[in-house]
This record gives sequence, structure tokens and C-alpha cells, in this order.
Amino acid sequence: MPSLQDEMANVKARVDALILDTLLPSSSPVPEVDLLYRMMRDYPARPAKGLRPFFCVASCRAMGGRAEDALLTAASIELFQHWILVHDDVEDQSELRRGQPALHVKHGEALAINAGDALHAEMWKSLLRNRDLLGYEKTLRVMQEFSSMVDETTEGQHMELVWVRDGRWDLTESDYYQMCTRKTSWYTVAGPCRLGAIVAGSGERDLEKLLQFGLKLGVGFQIQDDALNLVGDPAVYGKASSDDILEGKRTLILLKLLGLASAEEKARVTSIMSRSRQEKTESEVAYVLSLMKKYGTIESAQRRAKELVDDALEILATVEWRGDAASLEALRSAARFAVERKW
Amino acid sequence: MPSLQDEMANVKARVDALILDTLLPSSSPVPEVDLLYRMMRDYPARPAKGLRPFFCVASCRAMGGRAEDALLTAASIELFQHWILVHDDVEDQSELRRGQPALHVKHGEALAINAGDALHAEMWKSLLRNRDLLGYEKTLRVMQEFSSMVDETTEGQHMELVWVRDGRWDLTESDYYQMCTRKTSWYTVAGPCRLGAIVAGSGERDLEKLLQFGLKLGVGFQIQDDALNLVGDPAVYGKASSDDILEGKRTLILLKLLGLASAEEKARVTSIMSRSRQEKTESEVAYVLSLMKKYGTIESAQRRAKELVDDALEILATVEWRGDAASLEALRSAARFAVERKW
Repeated sequence: MPSLQDEMANVKARVDALILDTLLPSSSPVPEVDLLYRMMRDYPARPAKGLRPFFCVASCRAMGGRAEDALLTAASIELFQHWILVHDDVEDQSELRRGQPALHVKHGEALAINAGDALHAEMWKSLLRNRDLLGYEKTLRVMQEFSSMVDETTEGQHMELVWVRDGRWDLTESDYYQMCTRKTSWYTVAGPCRLGAIVAGSGERDLEKLLQFGLKLGVGFQIQDDALNLVGDPAVYGKASSDDILEGKRTLILLKLLGLASAEEKARVTSIMSRSRQEKTESEVAYVLSLMKKYGTIESAQRRAKELVDDALEILATVEWRGDAASLEALRSAARFAVERKW
Repeated sequence: MPSLQDEMANVKARVDALILDTLLPSSSPVPEVDLLYRMMRDYPARPAKGLRPFFCVASCRAMGGRAEDALLTAASIELFQHWILVHDDVEDQSELRRGQPALHVKHGEALAINAGDALHAEMWKSLLRNRDLLGYEKTLRVMQEFSSMVDETTEGQHMELVWVRDGRWDLTESDYYQMCTRKTSWYTVAGPCRLGAIVAGSGERDLEKLLQFGLKLGVGFQIQDDALNLVGDPAVYGKASSDDILEGKRTLILLKLLGLASAEEKARVTSIMSRSRQEKTESEVAYVLSLMKKYGTIESAQRRAKELVDDALEILATVEWRGDAASLEALRSAARFAVERKW
């Protein structure tokens, strides 16, 4: 029996082949346009886990659908991830993406923003191709779901950007969940699982349950991502270590620290976190990290992530699955992987 | 009989009401999200000509369709214009849009890029609403056309950005037409006219003619835009005068100048044009403008624009119109307005 990682790699390979061989333009006789195409293919060609397309395909199969019918939709989910990362990297002034320079670092911000827009449009174009596979009605229902997914994601990204821009530190864990369910949960878990189920023909009752499952698990995924950013091995994880401290991100780990630290520590942490990436010294980043370790907020956030996945799996058990048991088990494994992974 | 300007204003008012009252979200109890919604409504609330939605509705009626059936599509064309302008203004570092500060000047680049993405998604969401009005098949056909339109526009924008980034001045008029047909013609004339015709049920033969009509007229429109940028009244036109010189834009007017100027003048012009906005002095901008006047390249470009509209109108006459003659006449008037307007 193939391992979860093998199954994920298998779906990812099929989806990537679809994206690079069929969905994205490959070359143009106009040299400038050829550069645009190469920029559009840059992030899609970088290695990644493929958790999102896996959720989509596994959910479709667990619901009784065929993997082939979910592939275009899964590829469109990856395209969504690619274009939004191109823009996020500009917005957050991130320097690395999956171990390589971010697209705007290589080509400048103006070209990167425009290439992100071009990729965004390819996502919808790819969804239009569902027509021959899924028929008119389901094609439009899938697009409706993408529309919700983009709405939620841009709202979550906006919330986080405003907090950084306005130097907001008076944030509760509830604020964090509001931001994180929008910014991460929707497009990482809820959307992919619901889309797989929509392709398989699920009704609204199960879709609502998959939404609740996905919102919880997505927050768990983000917490683990934030933890890996601080204590993960950069060679395995692929991002600069402690990048979130440099970017001033309001993670659950940081908010928990602000709730536990002394007034003096809190003042120093928020003063450091409020400065721009360039103004932060290595020892200041190390200081923030040492306090997180002193107060154990990385571990307490990870415990919260484990509770969230347990809650999520309970909800998953109430869905009326009509497909094969192995796919449902793969979905459960992927859910646990999301909060236990090292990369 | 209502004037062209009255008819344009009428369509624009109906489309704007649809966008602001129905299509865009208006408020949120979450203060951060409420700010996002206000940002998304910013450009749509600024006054504009509404040439694009007018082309769409007039083309639909001239082809025998109903104006009501084209309104959602026309509103989506306006949404396209809004999101792409938000991003273009960041990419070109423009400071003003329609006489007011650009969105990124008001809120910072990160929030503006993200708000542009949110608006982009609203365009597709709005197109999904066509389902009940036009049925499944036509809804998807309209979306396919939008997909082509975004592809072409991002390619044209990319070409222009690369020229600026790489300091390219060895450009021919043919390079300019390649860039301009992609960047401007598709979404200003070709797309809107074809979309109106698609809503009315046109076949591919007429759509191909409308493409040729639109590509030519769109270049004429852009030439007039470039001329107004140099010699238009900022109070009427709404943009900072000579902004294109400050941005280093490769307009037909400038390329014609480079073809006529002495070697010494050419060297000085390209040296000035290659500098960033901040590094250009007022007298340097005035020098470039004075050479354009000395060699008459504003007038010769405008003569080219008039030839293009004449060619375009000849093509328009070969389309098999099946609707009312008044709408066809309005379409012709709008075509002439595109290259004769003062704003």
C-alpha cells in the first residue's frame, strides 16, 4: 500500500504535468512575451508538497467521484496558490519562496505583480476547461466556489496587512482565528475538500460540514507553518528561518507570548516586531525567539493545533461518505500530516 | 434624439449603479474587512467616461440584442478596468488617477495590490451571475472572452514594463502596435464590442471582424490618450500633464520623435526618458515636449489615429448587423469620439 507521501507526490506530479504541459503557455516568438510566460511558469516549476490538490482529489474519491474528474480543479487550486504567493511575496516583501529568490526579487515588483495577474486569469481559464469534463452546471458551481475562496483569502490577507501597517498588537486569539480562517483555511483545506466533493456531486449539507472541517484544520496547518518558520530546518522547510519575526507577522505563537510576557518584555518585543525587516538585528530576532521558548508558546500553539485537528476529524466522521474507504483514510492521514509535518 | 454623451452617461450610470449597489460588497462588521470593501469601491466611485460599457451595450443592440442582457457583462468590463488600473498604478508608480491620488498612494502598495486582486475576483463573480440571464452556455462563452481579454492585456502591459525596465529605445512603430493592440485595444474596444455581440448571439465570422475593428480603433484611442497626456487640459482630462514623459512611456509620439530627431537630440531625449520620475526636472520634461512640437509628432500621431478610425469604420461596415440602425450609428459615433475626445 502506497504511503501518504507517495500518494501526495503522485497527485502533485499529475497536477504539475497538467499545469506545465497543457494549462500554461510555454513559449512566444515575441521575446518580451516569452519572458512573461517564463515568469508565469516559475513558481509552478518549484517543488512543493501538493497538500491542496491532494485534499481535492482524496475528497472527490472518498465521496465516490473519479480522480480524473478532479484533476483540472486540483490544478486550478495550485494555480491559485501560485498567483497569490507571487503577490503575497511582494506585499510581505518576502525574499525567498521555496528556497529560491521570490519572483519580484528576480524580475522587479512591477513585472511580478503583472505576472501574478496573468496567472490569476489562467486559473479561471483552466476552470473553464472543466466544461467538457463536468458539464455546464457543475463547471459554474466549481467556479462559484473559487470565487468564495478568493474572497475569503484576500480578506484574510488584508486583515493581516492592516495589522502590520498600523502596528496593531492589541489582538486577541479570536482576532487571529478570524484572520487565519479567511487567509489560510479556506484555500488550504475547506475549498480543496469542498471542491473535490462538488466534483463528486455532494449536496450542501456535506459541503457545510467540510467547511467546518476545513476551517479548523486550516488554522492547525497555519500554526504548524508558523512553528516551522521559527524552529524548522530551513533546508527541509525551504523558507528563511524566523522570516515571520522579520516580517512582523501576528502569529498565534506571538500573540500567546504577548499575553504571558512581563510588561517590560512585551514592550521590547512589540518595539522589535514593529520595525521593518531591514531595521531588525539578528540578536533582536534571537531575543523574541528566546522569549517564545521561555514561555513555551511554540509548544502551546502546537497543542492547540493538535486539538484543532482532533475537532476537525470528528466533524469529518459525520460526513456521509459514499466512496472508497482507502481515500477517506488518506484524507484523515493528510489532515494529521498538515499539523505534524516538518516541511 | 439624445447626444452620444447623454447615451454614454446613461449606460455608465446604469452600470455604476449595478456595480456599487449589487456587485460589490458594501460594508462589514469587521473593521479591517470594511476598509478592504471601501478600497474596492474607490476607483468604481470615481467619475469616468464609460466608453467600454457603452461599446458593449451599443454593439449588443446593433446586433439585435437587448441592452438589459448586456448590462452585467458591461459592468464586468468596468470591474476589469478598475482592478487593472489599481495594479497598473502601482506598476507604473502613477500618483494620480482621475484627478485623485492613486489607491496605493492613499493606502500603501501592499493593501492596494491585494484590493486589486479582490476586485479581479469580483469581476469573475459578476460574470457568474450571467447564468440566470443568458443561460449556461453563453455565460461560459462570455467568460472565455474575458479570459482572452485578460491574457492580451497582461501581455501588453508586460511588454511596456520590460521596455521601461530594460531602457529599450530601439523600438519600431510595429513594436508599438504589437504592444498597444494587446495592452489597450483588446479591453478597450475589441473585447467590449465582441462581448456585446456574443450576448446578442453573433457568430464567429462577425466576431472576427469586430476583433479587427477593435484592434485598429484601440490603437487610435491610445494615441489620442497619449496626446491628451501631453497637451490636454489636466482639469478636463484628469491626469497630471506629461505624466507619460515622467513615467518614461514609449508612446507612438515619442517613437516618431526618436525617428526624426538629430543624433544629439535623440541622445538627450533617451537620457532624460530613462531616468526615474524623481530624477526628472520640469525643464527636462519641457524639453522633450518642445521637441515633439518642433517635429510635429503629436500631430502626425493624431493623423495616424484618424486613419486608424477610418480603417476601423470600413471594417465595421462589413459586419452583418441585425439590430437597430440608431445603435449602429451610436457605435460609429463612439468610435469617432475615441480618437477625437478631449477627455
